Amino acid sequence: MEKANPITWRNRLHNTIYESNTMAGKAFDVALLALIMSSIVVVMLDSIDEYHDRYGRVFYIMEWAFTGLFTLEYLLRLISIQRPWRYVFSFFGLIDLLAIIPSYLSIFLVGAQSLLVLRALRLLRVFRIFKLTHFLTEMEFLKISIATSLKKITIFMLVVLSLVIILGSVMYLVENGQNGFTSIPASIYWAIVTITTVGYGDITPVTTVGKFVASLMMFIGYGIIAVPTGIITTEMAFAARRRKHGHETCPGCGREGHDNDAVFCKFCGTLL
Amino acid sequence: MEKANPITWRNRLHNTIYESNTMAGKAFDVALLALIMSSIVVVMLDSIDEYHDRYGRVFYIMEWAFTGLFTLEYLLRLISIQRPWRYVFSFFGLIDLLAIIPSYLSIFLVGAQSLLVLRALRLLRVFRIFKLTHFLTEMEFLKISIATSLKKITIFMLVVLSLVIILGSVMYLVENGQNGFTSIPASIYWAIVTITTVGYGDITPVTTVGKFVASLMMFIGYGIIAVPTGIITTEMAFAARRRKHGHETCPGCGREGHDNDAVFCKFCGTLL
Amino acid sequence: MEKANPITWRNRLHNTIYESNTMAGKAFDVALLALIMSSIVVVMLDSIDEYHDRYGRVFYIMEWAFTGLFTLEYLLRLISIQRPWRYVFSFFGLIDLLAIIPSYLSIFLVGAQSLLVLRALRLLRVFRIFKLTHFLTEMEFLKISIATSLKKITIFMLVVLSLVIILGSVMYLVENGQNGFTSIPASIYWAIVTITTVGYGDITPVTTVGKFVASLMMFIGYGIIAVPTGIITTEMAFAARRRKHGHETCPGCGREGHDNDAVFCKFCGTLL
Amino acid sequence: MEKANPITWRNRLHNTIYESNTMAGKAFDVALLALIMSSIVVVMLDSIDEYHDRYGRVFYIMEWAFTGLFTLEYLLRLISIQRPWRYVFSFFGLIDLLAIIPSYLSIFLVGAQSLLVLRALRLLRVFRIFKLTHFLTEMEFLKISIATSLKKITIFMLVVLSLVIILGSVMYLVENGQNGFTSIPASIYWAIVTITTVGYGDITPVTTVGKFVASLMMFIGYGIIAVPTGIITTEMAFAARRRKHGHETCPGCGREGHDNDAVFCKFCGTLL
Repeated sequence: MEKANPITWRNRLHNTIYESNTMAGKAFDVALLALIMSSIVVVMLDSIDEYHDRYGRVFYIMEWAFTGLFTLEYLLRLISIQRPWRYVFSFFGLIDLLAIIPSYLSIFLVGAQSLLVLRALRLLRVFRIFKLTHFLTEMEFLKISIATSLKKITIFMLVVLSLVIILGSVMYLVENGQNGFTSIPASIYWAIVTITTVGYGDITPVTTVGKFVASLMMFIGYGIIAVPTGIITTEMAFAARRRKHGHETCPGCGREGHDNDAVFCKFCGTLL
Repeated sequence: MEKANPITWRNRLHNTIYESNTMAGKAFDVALLALIMSSIVVVMLDSIDEYHDRYGRVFYIMEWAFTGLFTLEYLLRLISIQRPWRYVFSFFGLIDLLAIIPSYLSIFLVGAQSLLVLRALRLLRVFRIFKLTHFLTEMEFLKISIATSLKKITIFMLVVLSLVIILGSVMYLVENGQNGFTSIPASIYWAIVTITTVGYGDITPVTTVGKFVASLMMFIGYGIIAVPTGIITTEMAFAARRRKHGHETCPGCGREGHDNDAVFCKFCGTLL
Repeated sequence: MEKANPITWRNRLHNTIYESNTMAGKAFDVALLALIMSSIVVVMLDSIDEYHDRYGRVFYIMEWAFTGLFTLEYLLRLISIQRPWRYVFSFFGLIDLLAIIPSYLSIFLVGAQSLLVLRALRLLRVFRIFKLTHFLTEMEFLKISIATSLKKITIFMLVVLSLVIILGSVMYLVENGQNGFTSIPASIYWAIVTITTVGYGDITPVTTVGKFVASLMMFIGYGIIAVPTGIITTEMAFAARRRKHGHETCPGCGREGHDNDAVFCKFCGTLL
Repeated sequence: MEKANPITWRNRLHNTIYESNTMAGKAFDVALLALIMSSIVVVMLDSIDEYHDRYGRVFYIMEWAFTGLFTLEYLLRLISIQRPWRYVFSFFGLIDLLAIIPSYLSIFLVGAQSLLVLRALRLLRVFRIFKLTHFLTEMEFLKISIATSLKKITIFMLVVLSLVIILGSVMYLVENGQNGFTSIPASIYWAIVTITTVGYGDITPVTTVGKFVASLMMFIGYGIIAVPTGIITTEMAFAARRRKHGHETCPGCGREGHDNDAVFCKFCGTLL
């Protein structure tokens, strides 16, 4: 925040780039977001053979323009912050670097340009920018709910992983290495495709026993898909209730559970 | 509502067409619904080559009959309402127009008739008509729950969108533009098919690394499908509780929203 | 129940067949269930060409044996009940009849035997028999939760149906009647396969616009699959709470919300 | 636990192998887990033809090394426990045996080595080891929620099973044994693939009636997938609430289970 510092040009630059409570800061954020999105669209279009053949030249120039602008932004971020190294090795610092390196690498290394798709990672900055808007509370809410349920989800995922390895191995035995179940890893891949109900159909059981095991697996998958939902819903309900009801205690009767907007205790009528 | 106006023919027409508290109004609604459904069934059947060859002539006549009736309805709606332009540019006004235009266009423009399928949009009028029945409360309930969770769902969808762009781009790199992953947009399409657990199987990973990334993605999809469910369930539970409790009014301050177990008003301390 | 009647042979037969509080009644239920399952297994095995060729003769005899036993059971049910016609036209009465008719029909009509698969409907009797066990409360609970949410689910299904008709029609236009989208009904079938996340892959979009519409549809499907879950979960939570907490009012303070096992009011300590 | 016994070597061995409150016990558990995982990875890699051809010899030696270590572990477990037979016939005892038998069998029986994949079952020991960490409470929580909802889930699964048999049989009739619906079991397999929304696409309806029945089935599947989620979520919410509240003991009667807002014991009326 650095609100006590004298307003120097470096300070003003910092506020524009890293904060968004000023007019310039907001404009910078919106412009940056538009730039990131445009650069991703260009990389996307360039990956389509038809467009590459026709507009490849234009895309090439645009990509260098984006690289130039992102490099400029990167340098400005470096000089306007007090501890540059900390930014460089931060999550967003690394992503920002990953977005400009491939272009420069492509001068020396043929094919390095294909790494430009990593620019898509910069999209995550959207959530940084969102922070400033009224979505903040909702994001906080989602983050808390997911964070508190992470332990349970981890255990659940471990159970699913064991299940998938065991049932995948069983299918490898049952289908005898035939019909696409050529190896245990391939069979595990099939098991994941099945238990998550994605069901590509690139590998499907052919033998009767295999179909039976597969049916069993689908039923298991059908039943356990309910578990992560149950976990997250329960945590969300608690988070939502916590947000609504205060943890204040009534001075008259000592009871809790009052609403956030309560002025008097709902049990004994004492002023809170 | 216009209840103060003298009962003129225009007024009666308005009541029949726009309201449904009269016998005629209800009959009009039911007849309209039947007409819309019949017209959609005819368009559907006409799209099947076999039936088109055999009954094409009959369908052609029926479609003009429906167009005639819908045009008549449109005109009646126009003359019976006080501000016709407002209806014309309203959501349902535009859909009503879209349902009759293609037929007239087809006189001048070959192929415009295929736009007749837009008539399916008129199906949405079902919900207009439902409003009148005892489904109203339930619809209100669903609408409120979904509206309050819209912000959270939006953030969630943005996360999924970023994920899908990033993982799609990664797969384009991993599968090296082969095996259907011919461009980044195509790979993103695959990523969406995978993360939503639809899993057509028209594009599937072939390389080992690709299968590994795909497996990871399915697990992510499996875990996060729980999030929108959690959001909507929590909001519904709150909406349901709100509907059940808290409609008591405080005799002291006239405010609502008290808990079931409250003895004193939480706002002014009066005994409830 | 007919508990006041003198115990005649007809009465005892009725108790054995329709009730299950006697030893004989329980034995009858278990035997019937075993018989139904065996008959279904025989029909299943007979449908496999390989087995039909080898054991067709045996299956034929067994099917007639089952038909004989089921006919006997049907007649016994008829003579042991007071109002036979009521049973004949009841849900289970019709199913019981459907299970024996195809065999007799097959004497006169070639191919009627294939209707034997309708015998599978008798499986529903399992739930009749379950009624007697300790699963009753749980079944009641599930039935109430689903019944109370039926109205909301109906509206939801109507929304999905409209969506599927509209988006199916749009896809028919977009894919121009090619690539499997040969007619509007076929496109609607594809839309249902997509929005329910089944995703067979027998029809898939090929054009870029088609893939875009499909992606949109999958996202919609991903979001709205949460709605029926939310509805049922909320209803279940209410049903569960209702079952746990009594609706008794305390004579001392007039408050409700006591647990089922409560002896004293938890608010004022008065004996309930 | 055996805490009263004098510390002998056998006792110390028991503590190291079966418990994990000592340093040695923890080290043993981690080493065992690493060993199990390595052995599974080796079996996996060996199942890939390419690796088998190149490193088959190395894998062979490693598998015998793992077998030797697991045999040693098995013997140590046997001699360090007081009732060896009880361990041998316990769930984990049988799995431990199943993990070493195939190797020895392969000396006499060609092909028995393929049963090595059963080693994957040892992965379940992960959860045994997890017990010791802070995941215990969360695991307990998940286990309780799932256990209490098991009865409801069982009924639900029975309904789904009946539905799948009935609708599978109907499809066999409708598609007339063609298009992959070659037998009733095959059609039931298809029905399971459809209702669980897996949707491989290896068998798909071709006739119009078949597509209609399939669409109906997908809608049913879409609606009822909400039921197990609802069941588990409700149970989880109750389990979570129980864990949060109600651990206060009444000074009068010593019973627990009071609500958060209770002032008097609901069992004996004593002031809490």
